[in-house]
Amino acid sequence: MLKQRPSLRIVFSILCAAPLVRAQAAVAEPPPLVTDGDPDRSIPPCSGCHQPNGGGSEEGAAARLAAIGEQYIANQIENFRNGNRNHPVMTPWAKELTGAEVKTLAAYYEALPPASNAVVPPRLKREDGQWLALYGDWPNRRLPACQQCHGPLGIGARDHFPALAGQPYSYLVNQMASWGTGARIGDHDGMMRAVAEKLSMAEAQRVAAFYASLPAQGAMEVATEIGSGERVPSAADLRPPGQGADSQPPQDAGPKKTGEQPMPHRGTPIGHQGPTPAGRDLVKGASYFEPPSRTERPEDDFGEMVAMGESIFSNTYSHEVSGKYVGNTQVCEGCHLDAGRLADSSPMWAARINYPAYRKKNDKVDTLVERVQGCFKYSMNVQASEVGTVPSAESRTIRALLSYMHWLATGAPVGDKDIPGRGYPKLEKTADGFEPERGAEVYAAHCAICHGENGEGGYAGAEMVFPPLWGEHSYNWGAGMHRINTAAAFIKANMPLGSYIELTEQQAWDLAAFMNSHERPQDPRFTGDLAETTEQFHGSEYDYYGKRKGTDGKLLGEGAMTPASRPAEAGGN
Amino acid sequence: MLKQRPSLRIVFSILCAAPLVRAQAAVAEPPPLVTDGDPDRSIPPCSGCHQPNGGGSEEGAAARLAAIGEQYIANQIENFRNGNRNHPVMTPWAKELTGAEVKTLAAYYEALPPASNAVVPPRLKREDGQWLALYGDWPNRRLPACQQCHGPLGIGARDHFPALAGQPYSYLVNQMASWGTGARIGDHDGMMRAVAEKLSMAEAQRVAAFYASLPAQGAMEVATEIGSGERVPSAADLRPPGQGADSQPPQDAGPKKTGEQPMPHRGTPIGHQGPTPAGRDLVKGASYFEPPSRTERPEDDFGEMVAMGESIFSNTYSHEVSGKYVGNTQVCEGCHLDAGRLADSSPMWAARINYPAYRKKNDKVDTLVERVQGCFKYSMNVQASEVGTVPSAESRTIRALLSYMHWLATGAPVGDKDIPGRGYPKLEKTADGFEPERGAEVYAAHCAICHGENGEGGYAGAEMVFPPLWGEHSYNWGAGMHRINTAAAFIKANMPLGSYIELTEQQAWDLAAFMNSHERPQDPRFTGDLAETTEQFHGSEYDYYGKRKGTDGKLLGEGAMTPASRPAEAGGN
Repeated sequence: MLKQRPSLRIVFSILCAAPLVRAQAAVAEPPPLVTDGDPDRSIPPCSGCHQPNGGGSEEGAAARLAAIGEQYIANQIENFRNGNRNHPVMTPWAKELTGAEVKTLAAYYEALPPASNAVVPPRLKREDGQWLALYGDWPNRRLPACQQCHGPLGIGARDHFPALAGQPYSYLVNQMASWGTGARIGDHDGMMRAVAEKLSMAEAQRVAAFYASLPAQGAMEVATEIGSGERVPSAADLRPPGQGADSQPPQDAGPKKTGEQPMPHRGTPIGHQGPTPAGRDLVKGASYFEPPSRTERPEDDFGEMVAMGESIFSNTYSHEVSGKYVGNTQVCEGCHLDAGRLADSSPMWAARINYPAYRKKNDKVDTLVERVQGCFKYSMNVQASEVGTVPSAESRTIRALLSYMHWLATGAPVGDKDIPGRGYPKLEKTADGFEPERGAEVYAAHCAICHGENGEGGYAGAEMVFPPLWGEHSYNWGAGMHRINTAAAFIKANMPLGSYIELTEQQAWDLAAFMNSHERPQDPRFTGDLAETTEQFHGSEYDYYGKRKGTDGKLLGEGAMTPASRPAEAGGN
Repeated sequence: MLKQRPSLRIVFSILCAAPLVRAQAAVAEPPPLVTDGDPDRSIPPCSGCHQPNGGGSEEGAAARLAAIGEQYIANQIENFRNGNRNHPVMTPWAKELTGAEVKTLAAYYEALPPASNAVVPPRLKREDGQWLALYGDWPNRRLPACQQCHGPLGIGARDHFPALAGQPYSYLVNQMASWGTGARIGDHDGMMRAVAEKLSMAEAQRVAAFYASLPAQGAMEVATEIGSGERVPSAADLRPPGQGADSQPPQDAGPKKTGEQPMPHRGTPIGHQGPTPAGRDLVKGASYFEPPSRTERPEDDFGEMVAMGESIFSNTYSHEVSGKYVGNTQVCEGCHLDAGRLADSSPMWAARINYPAYRKKNDKVDTLVERVQGCFKYSMNVQASEVGTVPSAESRTIRALLSYMHWLATGAPVGDKDIPGRGYPKLEKTADGFEPERGAEVYAAHCAICHGENGEGGYAGAEMVFPPLWGEHSYNWGAGMHRINTAAAFIKANMPLGSYIELTEQQAWDLAAFMNSHERPQDPRFTGDLAETTEQFHGSEYDYYGKRKGTDGKLLGEGAMTPASRPAEAGGN
């Protein structure tokens, strides 16, 4: 997985991207509040705690502000003002500031070059927290990976997900404790609360050590330090949750602990893999197949292909091996969560054991190779890619993905069509059907924060963090997800990711309808005639293609994006 | 499976083939012994029992002789003379005949048009015996299929394996009883004894009904009656051993039977799948995975592909879908017995769950598609085929084979490298090494009867029944079987097929060395230079390529067969 997705090309594009460039162009004189505060209003200088370089401090557990987004900083000052956050220094100070002052300060810090003053306690190592940061703990706790929102290696994504890389260790630990105990609130849909309250105190420390040990500038560069050649951490470097440094009694901490100390809980966890989550309309009482742990990946040639496959799976569009076959900014993991491991999210172990299989879509028996090629054709919109044709059966892309899927299915019984967790749990129609107009409201409330107000997705620099849901960078009109019933099933089972919110079935239907009432890349089976294509391929009642008007007033499919024509090369690699 | 392998093209070539054509050209006057016998020597007329058309009779349990090979008939008369066979009429009669008379009679009957006077008891149906005739009962009894020696649909193969199609039911039952009880002997290596003594009386009747119900002329035509479009019997038509007509008490037979009456045994059965055969140096005490029964094949689109895959597996070179990719007369089943089901014979269920995998041969991780393509490249010598390049991943050939392998592995755990019965059981080196000269003697004694004195294989008309072992129709110098250790392991575990003979390890090594000391089609990786090719690909001590001289006095590989150069077409289908 490792959301750092990057080929080197992308690493460099990030290193040279917005914050740094802006900073170099505009290292401004600090405003007086930063250097001197305002004694008249009892405001201390910001740099007293946050330091002149804006890198924060361990002593005061003060955040790194340098190169943090202006909007995010302004929001936090507001949170101190309205009581969502509480701090003996910050709370009174924030209440004194004028709007103009907030804007000036926030802009100043955003423009600062990334800097860090973080110091990690010697007993902790970066690897100790790597697992939770990169993978979370879906199978047991529906705990998302930090980087699923905060971007690859915590470089930050969108306004609401600040950089974690290079934040002071003490600040990160404090914040996780505050979210988990309810001392800090105001997170959208309880996202941080849902995460933090599932963490043990020890886990919070490990995750903090991971991010604090990363440089504020150039965090992406350490991808190569952390990962193997293909940028998936070696199995030997991985410490699964509960097996980090603190499995030994900490040397520099208080009384000895026996085992993990859970954070105080506030509310009921949403559910977990293993026995089916209660309250979800999934397969009742089922025990899910468990793919092998990442630490069990073999350290041999096959294991290398598995690692490459996992990296491709999570970084499909930007991976140096597979990127040339992807015509949008999608990754396999976008529809198959937890890198294809998660039950009820069309997991790869269930696919692996059920192909070859007959598919109505193609009216023939497809092999697994052909099934995966189908994903490139539709979900990855290969038509707009560099190569323009799907990777061949002999390509490294296909071999790596099949190796990864094979390994994930280790021990699964071949041909078990009824294996619990296969595909998405089917969603029954509701009495009220589905309406994009209703879905638009749900979307604005719960989805736009990550996927963008216009479904454009969310990026960290050049890196996609939240998949685009419509438009030119989304899946095309031939992908399974364009069918409203499929999308509704996916949404109900999996979204919002790791949040406290649980959508109703009606909301899932409406969201799916809303998402798929927008224009997207053309169906590669397009015959040249919309009515004909609609009749041949889009007859389903769950399909708006050719039947409903999009926001441009034209029938959906009429304004579908088409790639410039490209030379069709063989996809060998 | 259905050894009738034929595409229609081949059916017709057989229908028009040797015996019929010869017969039409030469319907001779019957010799006086046939019509009148010789009262002076108390010899009754042959046609009294065998009937004027040579089709035999049910009343006398007299064999069909029409179009049976001259050599086989002459051998049987000799058997009556020397006591290997005993019959109240035939034994004294045979002792009266001169050598010239035998030759005349045998030649006359071989030249007769195929004819049958067989009548099957009404309580029995052809389908009742189909299973044993087509598949035998490998998993439980190492019982080979009748057609594995007697040719597709019992049309006969080589001198020693007479036609069964159209033989009188009573004659067939009697002969199986005679083999099984030891009343008839003289079979090579106890082959028929080994078969017949494993049959129950009821099974013998069912098998007899199957063959007796086939026409003596045009047996191959009923392939389409029996089989589905792809000439594998539909699952619904299959009656597994023990589930034929006689599971009901017979209506026209003697006292009611409760269950199967075993044939009297003479000696110890060789072994069986299930618990490992005692006395064989296989995986000790292992229980083998059981692929699904043929009767469980689903009756849907996927099942159709599975059926096609099985048909291709057993008829590779002649199948209308796969034949164009095969440059010799080999079938997958030649190295993977019982249509890829048999443990210790590199079964397909074990391959299915263990790919993708790293292969030293290609120094990369290969998918199952690539592994199967490798079989076409080497074992099927695709270079000399109609197409000249391996079937593509999207071809029907590959999709059908993968579907079949997938289905065979139903329920097997993915990635179980140690599944018992995988591959061939490794054979330890013996103190005496391996010597082709010693192997030649073993070959002549035990192998030539089926595979031919010159390794040319055995055919029934145009249909291969026993695979060629060297020469232009065999596997090429890149195939795994050219390695002496691989071949020795295969031979020890599986050959002679279903016979009473068990080869020693030393014999297996020597046989493998003998087999692979002959010239065969060129390694497709041939660089143009024998020494270079040898160094790059044939360094093993178990490999004679480029190191030992063949029968032509040249180094092996130097005189290797190469196909005329062909246009390289894409292998889509």
